Amino acid sequence: MKIILAYSGGLDTTVSIRWLKEKYQADVITVTVDVGQVDDFKKLEERAYSAGASKHYMIDAKEEFVKGFVTYDIIMNGLYEDVYPLSTALARPLIAEKIVEVAKKEGTEFVAHGSTSKGNDQVRFDLAVMSKMPNAKIIAPARIWGMTRQDEVKFAEERGIQIKLESSKYSIDENLWGRSIEGDVISDPSVEVPEDAFELTKRTSDKSRMVIEFDKGIPVSINGKDLDLVTLIKEVNRIAGSTGFGRVDHIENRVVGFKSREVYEVPAALVLIAAHKDLEKMIYTPLEFRFKKYVDSQWSDLVYQGLWYEPLRETLQSTGEGMNKWIMGKVEVEVQGDGMRIIGRESINSPYSDKVASYNKGWYPSDEMARGFIEMWGMHSLLARKVRSDAL
Amino acid sequence: MKIILAYSGGLDTTVSIRWLKEKYQADVITVTVDVGQVDDFKKLEERAYSAGASKHYMIDAKEEFVKGFVTYDIIMNGLYEDVYPLSTALARPLIAEKIVEVAKKEGTEFVAHGSTSKGNDQVRFDLAVMSKMPNAKIIAPARIWGMTRQDEVKFAEERGIQIKLESSKYSIDENLWGRSIEGDVISDPSVEVPEDAFELTKRTSDKSRMVIEFDKGIPVSINGKDLDLVTLIKEVNRIAGSTGFGRVDHIENRVVGFKSREVYEVPAALVLIAAHKDLEKMIYTPLEFRFKKYVDSQWSDLVYQGLWYEPLRETLQSTGEGMNKWIMGKVEVEVQGDGMRIIGRESINSPYSDKVASYNKGWYPSDEMARGFIEMWGMHSLLARKVRSDAL
Amino acid sequence: MKIILAYSGGLDTTVSIRWLKEKYQADVITVTVDVGQVDDFKKLEERAYSAGASKHYMIDAKEEFVKGFVTYDIIMNGLYEDVYPLSTALARPLIAEKIVEVAKKEGTEFVAHGSTSKGNDQVRFDLAVMSKMPNAKIIAPARIWGMTRQDEVKFAEERGIQIKLESSKYSIDENLWGRSIEGDVISDPSVEVPEDAFELTKRTSDKSRMVIEFDKGIPVSINGKDLDLVTLIKEVNRIAGSTGFGRVDHIENRVVGFKSREVYEVPAALVLIAAHKDLEKMIYTPLEFRFKKYVDSQWSDLVYQGLWYEPLRETLQSTGEGMNKWIMGKVEVEVQGDGMRIIGRESINSPYSDKVASYNKGWYPSDEMARGFIEMWGMHSLLARKVRSDAL
Amino acid sequence: MKIILAYSGGLDTTVSIRWLKEKYQADVITVTVDVGQVDDFKKLEERAYSAGASKHYMIDAKEEFVKGFVTYDIIMNGLYEDVYPLSTALARPLIAEKIVEVAKKEGTEFVAHGSTSKGNDQVRFDLAVMSKMPNAKIIAPARIWGMTRQDEVKFAEERGIQIKLESSKYSIDENLWGRSIEGDVISDPSVEVPEDAFELTKRTSDKSRMVIEFDKGIPVSINGKDLDLVTLIKEVNRIAGSTGFGRVDHIENRVVGFKSREVYEVPAALVLIAAHKDLEKMIYTPLEFRFKKYVDSQWSDLVYQGLWYEPLRETLQSTGEGMNKWIMGKVEVEVQGDGMRIIGRESINSPYSDKVASYNKGWYPSDEMARGFIEMWGMHSLLARKVRSDAL
Repeated sequence: MKIILAYSGGLDTTVSIRWLKEKYQADVITVTVDVGQVDDFKKLEERAYSAGASKHYMIDAKEEFVKGFVTYDIIMNGLYEDVYPLSTALARPLIAEKIVEVAKKEGTEFVAHGSTSKGNDQVRFDLAVMSKMPNAKIIAPARIWGMTRQDEVKFAEERGIQIKLESSKYSIDENLWGRSIEGDVISDPSVEVPEDAFELTKRTSDKSRMVIEFDKGIPVSINGKDLDLVTLIKEVNRIAGSTGFGRVDHIENRVVGFKSREVYEVPAALVLIAAHKDLEKMIYTPLEFRFKKYVDSQWSDLVYQGLWYEPLRETLQSTGEGMNKWIMGKVEVEVQGDGMRIIGRESINSPYSDKVASYNKGWYPSDEMARGFIEMWGMHSLLARKVRSDAL
Repeated sequence: MKIILAYSGGLDTTVSIRWLKEKYQADVITVTVDVGQVDDFKKLEERAYSAGASKHYMIDAKEEFVKGFVTYDIIMNGLYEDVYPLSTALARPLIAEKIVEVAKKEGTEFVAHGSTSKGNDQVRFDLAVMSKMPNAKIIAPARIWGMTRQDEVKFAEERGIQIKLESSKYSIDENLWGRSIEGDVISDPSVEVPEDAFELTKRTSDKSRMVIEFDKGIPVSINGKDLDLVTLIKEVNRIAGSTGFGRVDHIENRVVGFKSREVYEVPAALVLIAAHKDLEKMIYTPLEFRFKKYVDSQWSDLVYQGLWYEPLRETLQSTGEGMNKWIMGKVEVEVQGDGMRIIGRESINSPYSDKVASYNKGWYPSDEMARGFIEMWGMHSLLARKVRSDAL
Repeated sequence: MKIILAYSGGLDTTVSIRWLKEKYQADVITVTVDVGQVDDFKKLEERAYSAGASKHYMIDAKEEFVKGFVTYDIIMNGLYEDVYPLSTALARPLIAEKIVEVAKKEGTEFVAHGSTSKGNDQVRFDLAVMSKMPNAKIIAPARIWGMTRQDEVKFAEERGIQIKLESSKYSIDENLWGRSIEGDVISDPSVEVPEDAFELTKRTSDKSRMVIEFDKGIPVSINGKDLDLVTLIKEVNRIAGSTGFGRVDHIENRVVGFKSREVYEVPAALVLIAAHKDLEKMIYTPLEFRFKKYVDSQWSDLVYQGLWYEPLRETLQSTGEGMNKWIMGKVEVEVQGDGMRIIGRESINSPYSDKVASYNKGWYPSDEMARGFIEMWGMHSLLARKVRSDAL
Repeated sequence: MKIILAYSGGLDTTVSIRWLKEKYQADVITVTVDVGQVDDFKKLEERAYSAGASKHYMIDAKEEFVKGFVTYDIIMNGLYEDVYPLSTALARPLIAEKIVEVAKKEGTEFVAHGSTSKGNDQVRFDLAVMSKMPNAKIIAPARIWGMTRQDEVKFAEERGIQIKLESSKYSIDENLWGRSIEGDVISDPSVEVPEDAFELTKRTSDKSRMVIEFDKGIPVSINGKDLDLVTLIKEVNRIAGSTGFGRVDHIENRVVGFKSREVYEVPAALVLIAAHKDLEKMIYTPLEFRFKKYVDSQWSDLVYQGLWYEPLRETLQSTGEGMNKWIMGKVEVEVQGDGMRIIGRESINSPYSDKVASYNKGWYPSDEMARGFIEMWGMHSLLARKVRSDAL
């Protein structure tokens, strides 16, 4: 029996290797997917073997992550509950897909992951696996074993398993699109998140400006320099993060039924989505703008809630992509401290027209035309109000 | 014939006094409504008389403005197209109401205002007047006369009318809830708004923190000090504005059919709405949160679009008010430069529970329960995906 | 140990009495709630005792059902997925509430119901119980025992338990607001439902007309005769059912993850909701009409999905109730065969005005006013279309 | 000066020919577009010349109407305010396009139509022309001349112009997709529409059944017989109309600010859309179903409101078309009197599965799985309810 385990290198999945091996008498094959997290993949591999892995796969999926997931988060202005750019949520289906690929290659139906029964990730992981391999047997040790963190450390020590020296008090998940931070004092929503929880964002009073160019909704250059999207995201993370911009702190509604306080560092995501939205607003009609907002928020909910393989997700995405074929242009932004503002924007596709908008020139409706518009625009409301006042 | 003119003291309405008097051989009675704008009301009155007003009313409506309008902008998180706190839009129906009160008192059907035929304000003003006085005759000189700004100045000079010394290149509208800035280079959306356009917000790298307490959705104290809402708003404007926070710059969809670039200074509005939303998110269920967002955005659209007297506006508002009876608690925020962040929040009405949310204690669903949830949660999607893949 | 069992009198719950008694060595107290189903409650009681019940409660909740549930289904135009008037879904929380009342009176935490693990009713029942009695222990024998229908019959026969002579091949749930039919050939969505499945609706080519009067959205009289709502519903069921009107047949999305084919007989519900909607359309502004539709469909989803105790349900309901204070008037309808049409309607609160609507009289906008309206109404769209065509 | 007039052959447009000719000293070129209305096009041409037309175009656009407009009304379930299949609304942009084509061919900027300033059609016509020919000069005589119907008849008689012998008291617009009826007693919403107003629907107690097959959402055969869509629609109109099915009577919200009572005969439209919706419900996930409903209703609003050239209309349409690639299958319906019901349906793309849905076989979640689902499904609601009860 072979079990394919999604391996992050952290305590839970390291302990899982041995636990799976002991409990199921199985060969545990670990798979680590590089979606842009900062890690020492060499050491991570050693740790896997130390814990008893019989084989280790290291898969670079950064390009796939950006092309198939992050790009759409920009196009769809993907912010769960208005603030969270879905960094972890977007990576889960991709990791699951890679696990399934390895499982098929290794000829087994058993796959495993480190998620607990209180988190969103189990939903994302399980459903993605079930979509890609309906006959999969999914094992989630942390849903079964009932160990506390302390128990896990003891379990590892007793067996001489290397575990990551995690000086950090926090539970972290990281990829190219952001870093999520949980645990310790953060679980009290009234307490300020300590500075030591943050790595990408260092609070200063520096300012920085960027001109971001978009082509069909996708950022293609910063300050006139063309960059592939992986590099561009890293660059924006660096620039914005260095002023302290990019932190999110909110009470989030989990799909499994309760609220949690969540903290993220997502400088590039916030900058790029804000700039993208500003450009969309310059280009779309008011009806398009409102419809897109609805589509975007539906998409964000589906991605967050583990429903990447819901058919509607693809419909929403292709609708958004269709609308983004017009999103061409440049947006200038400034980041400073914890703030960001739009300085200016331009697009050949914008219906904005100085001649139409200016009070001093161009198109000018007559008094009678204006009165015609106002009367018919408000008439339904006024007629209803009148008859109801009369009725009182 | 008496004409009641809504008088702001600016060039347009000052010229309107004389123009109305000459064109209609009418007694022009000016009405200035104090909704929190900073002005020298003594000089303004002199100007009105100098231009030919036969009578001048000065009406303090600050309390009414806050109680009947601004309060609801907080409760409804009123941000048109996600960014504009509706400062001008909210004041128009109140000003119109006051004009109608004077018209009724003075026994005339003729009312006048300074709006042009390209703006939103004419829609707000006309419809509010028509609601309150269906038989009103509304005269909007600027929709009729065809004068440019230069023509207006000449018209005033030829007649020896005092006009306001407007050193500013910008066209400004101001009240307690915010300041809007138009004109000059601002009409080019790619150009940065010059610093001289701003008055309430001075960019520094200072930081300030505030603890804002809400009672039924309405802010009642700052840093533990109870304040009436007029004072509280001024205080937040001062604190946040002094770090530079509170600017809005976007391309806005006007109700009359085109886009314009709009710039606002609205520090208190942005701080209070952001804090209010954060508290709502902590308290509402995810279904309430999504529904409230929809209700809020509908309300904002109606208010912006001049439909204050649409019956739906009241329904939305009483729905929002009902939901806000639970919005009790405190939010701590920090403003710095152009940024703002939430530091922490607390509420006795929040369903957030450390025992439920923590990975280390309390409620813990079993593996089988978790699998039951995930399977039924994703099943509709997976069944559909499967049958469609098979069909391909 | 006492277990309070929601007792319908059918096979599942009759067998449950004995099964619970044997398995838990418990006193099983049965509770039958009269929500308007047609049944012989005397025989039902005998059956309960024959199966081993130690006590039986018969509770008449028809009035409560109509006042607290059916009334709102009319006001909220409650039709799940556009067709199902939620008859069963609405009764579940009420039955659960009654069970909890008995449990509290009898001093026990154990309650039981006959729902299976594939249905919606378990969700409605369990959540309602958990809301009303957080410490309840809920036992659902049919989720545990793994018996087929055949096994159940054998179980009963072996123990000499009376079971209902169910000549019917179908599984039925019934109350005042409708009758749902499942099972047998119905589970093939392409097959016509046999006539013997129907009881309330007998297909004829008769016609009948009714004038239904509404007061604040609630039907109060039929053909000029004031009736309490229980009687009125029975009367409309009789009149409409006798022409064959009132059948629903659709593929329904269950909350537990899959589609089922569902058939209902709901003549009064369809007539009253259609008439109510027609009257609402006559009275509401277009904005109110669209908003109410959204509110209605959200409400229907919550009720169907077992979320009667979700706080949003009450918000939606009080919003709908507020809007219905204007829904006064009469609607004339005709039912014939499987069809229904609106013949006419009148209301003192309708903004409809012959003078405004007629081409031959009254209000008439000038050519210039009409052009003003059309230009500004369509301008956003035309400007965007133009700039995009130019870009191609 | 040449004026291109959209010519229906009715009184308004016949009088318009001469009125335009006299008022503008113009050559009036009439264009009649065949969109499936029943008319004597030979006589209509004679009438145009008798009234003074200098040239007459007769354009057969039935195929274009079906391909570019009616097909989408089926795919988008296009029913304005839930009931009106947009028959007239859909034809207007096509007629406008044909007028513009003739104008370009004839080298003129002047186009004219017969709409009044109180109707929706002027909005649809004007905006379509402005989209297709931004420099067009649009003349709408009926918005200018101020003649009553009587005045028009007199105008025609005095000049010896043939007018259509309209025995009918009603104002009719007709095309392949439906017939709309206005005027006379219909303008009183409480009065029953007289039988003589109807032509396509004759009330009987006959029954008829049809099996309608859909391919990518488009009906392709009736009772096993493949038909092109023009023929198929005529056939369904005939079958359904002969039982009396297909009437719509409601209070409609016009785009120009008021309500009117509108009556339509649209048998094929109602049958095909109902069957199409039933099939969509069988195939879509619940999330797709709800999203599509939103998209459909937005599309219907845009089409009705004259915004055919709003870019969002195309986005909605291509979203709907994308979703309809799965809509394959057959629906059996029965029409009788004024009613219609779905008898059964089948599709290879439906996720419906007897094995999943049946209580007696296949998939069966355990008690613990079911409890896991229910608990997490309802937990947000229950936690919020509890904390709020405690707060009271």
